[in-house]
Amino acid sequence: MATEAEVRIALAQVQDPELGRSIVELGMIRDLKVEDGKVAFTLVLTNLSCPFKDRIVSSAKQAVQAVEGIQDVDIYLDEMTAKEKASLDEGNTFQGVAEKLNNIKHVIAIMSGKGGVGKSLVTGLLATGLCRLRNRVGILDADITGPSIPKMFFTNGAKPGFSPIAILPAKTRTGVAVMSINLILESEDQAVIWRGPLISNTIRQFWSDVLWGDLDFLLVDLPPGTSDASLTVLQSLPMSGVILVTPPQSLAGMVVRKAAHMVRDIGIPILGLLENMSYFMCPDTGKHHEIFGPSNPESMASQLKIPFLGCLPIDPDIAALCDRGEIESYPGDLFGPIAKRIAELAPVAIPPKMNKHESQRA
Amino acid sequence: MATEAEVRIALAQVQDPELGRSIVELGMIRDLKVEDGKVAFTLVLTNLSCPFKDRIVSSAKQAVQAVEGIQDVDIYLDEMTAKEKASLDEGNTFQGVAEKLNNIKHVIAIMSGKGGVGKSLVTGLLATGLCRLRNRVGILDADITGPSIPKMFFTNGAKPGFSPIAILPAKTRTGVAVMSINLILESEDQAVIWRGPLISNTIRQFWSDVLWGDLDFLLVDLPPGTSDASLTVLQSLPMSGVILVTPPQSLAGMVVRKAAHMVRDIGIPILGLLENMSYFMCPDTGKHHEIFGPSNPESMASQLKIPFLGCLPIDPDIAALCDRGEIESYPGDLFGPIAKRIAELAPVAIPPKMNKHESQRA
Repeated sequence: MATEAEVRIALAQVQDPELGRSIVELGMIRDLKVEDGKVAFTLVLTNLSCPFKDRIVSSAKQAVQAVEGIQDVDIYLDEMTAKEKASLDEGNTFQGVAEKLNNIKHVIAIMSGKGGVGKSLVTGLLATGLCRLRNRVGILDADITGPSIPKMFFTNGAKPGFSPIAILPAKTRTGVAVMSINLILESEDQAVIWRGPLISNTIRQFWSDVLWGDLDFLLVDLPPGTSDASLTVLQSLPMSGVILVTPPQSLAGMVVRKAAHMVRDIGIPILGLLENMSYFMCPDTGKHHEIFGPSNPESMASQLKIPFLGCLPIDPDIAALCDRGEIESYPGDLFGPIAKRIAELAPVAIPPKMNKHESQRA
Repeated sequence: MATEAEVRIALAQVQDPELGRSIVELGMIRDLKVEDGKVAFTLVLTNLSCPFKDRIVSSAKQAVQAVEGIQDVDIYLDEMTAKEKASLDEGNTFQGVAEKLNNIKHVIAIMSGKGGVGKSLVTGLLATGLCRLRNRVGILDADITGPSIPKMFFTNGAKPGFSPIAILPAKTRTGVAVMSINLILESEDQAVIWRGPLISNTIRQFWSDVLWGDLDFLLVDLPPGTSDASLTVLQSLPMSGVILVTPPQSLAGMVVRKAAHMVRDIGIPILGLLENMSYFMCPDTGKHHEIFGPSNPESMASQLKIPFLGCLPIDPDIAALCDRGEIESYPGDLFGPIAKRIAELAPVAIPPKMNKHESQRA
């Protein structure tokens, strides 16, 4: 059955003859509904007495009817407000075409502040878990200098697609959409030696120029630290919330608390705390060894006044699956319930309040 | 016995009456030698017929004689080259006073690209090991958003000192000089939410405004990634070389290789590769468990054509000592030989070739 994203892509091909830009990009499509092969939307013209009105309407109708599975198209007409017209003049170069086509319900960042605690692992397991719960899931790998996501999901040579209007994310074997700098680099060992502004631009592009389509969840894998990449994601993407990952060691906990304070400062909800590498179960004796120190994540969560989501052990099997690009084969007994809880906790994405602030600082 | 740094500090109090700035800051002290209470140096004047010549010479002599343990002072006179005079006019604001007082033989960065692999642990153990070999050692914590060094060495409330001309690093119980952003923050949990340029400036200040004094080794603990902090350190500090730290997991190895390529690109020698978290020895059975996957660092080192320095196991005792600020109590059987090897491998620090390039990009 045709999806909203497919219809939007079709409509994005239609241009306003006067302005020479896509009607989707110009914000002329409103209240789009796609149900059982029936499409309805409002076409918002710059002026209802626009000389090209009939031409735009018939081109839009034709484009939508060409989508497989569409039987019926209803187009209502409306006129832009003065403010909307003014924003057309500003050029609105920041928002990409893809961004207007995307329809993403929840945007969740996986963060820690500390490196090597398993943010990417949690992102990968969460994506897999949410997929198994029949959600449409994407991963935006915001770790530009140390991207780990592609190696977990793909064996080799996965590449994003390129269409005239957008970048198409790579798809994993279970259907997770993935965008990462390592999918573009010629060799996975190539270093990305960029200063902050370039890093931030790349992340923004992964948001605005990638055709994510219809997603229930977009997971954003953040790099360590509370500098450029984290700031850009938290300030300029419409976030639903943040999941914090911590290892047991108290030294590392300090750095995770720094990250929590940053998220609070920006005003984004923290959905919960997950502890990774809590213990290693000796395969010979079955005994749990707390090899990174004693584990007490519940107290850290209650100190930060956020939900505690669970503990993950160190499991050599996960490491091996990740190294082989087969994280999706990991059984769901452990992470399944955590994914379910996160799906229930996640609020709908809220537009960033600080976009303006962000662009001033960038 | 008086050290070169003490003499330099004394000389830094003497001003050129005409220029109103310290003679050390102005680069007027050359070929300083301090031996058995005897001091000799060349005073480089802007002009040998400078009307204030005698006044500067006698002030300098007096300042040095006030240092405890100095019996004899020999001052030779010379004149600045045209180029040196020109650089005086430029103001030369980048170089701090402390930087001219410091006398640091080897500057070694501990790097990985990947986070959470134990860069800070290696830095701490290496500092301790080099200290036990009777070296004078400092640690510059370049991880501004996730600083771990202070918590490893201090129990609580360690603070740097502040003199009119420089910041004085905090000293650990065995005498390691430490500078870290966490020694300055009001609370260790406070987040540093800065974009790249501010991070880079802070690191430069830790180099140019901190009075490290006479050091055999300054270890620079780098954050994960190949962006601002790493670029600033590798491009603007006079590096002797880089030590790479990797965990066993092949996924992480990819990110470490990215870092290696960055170091090569900038033209700094890699002194060797260390593997951390290679295995966990079960205390019950004595068996080694490769919990992050099979370990093969020798092949990675030979692939990168760099020396292999050794493996460190996961040891809950180290984690506990680090959490208590007592890393210096860790026995040296394991890391002692590695520290000795690194001390032998390290070349003398070479001035950065790319300073100019750096300042253009910053």
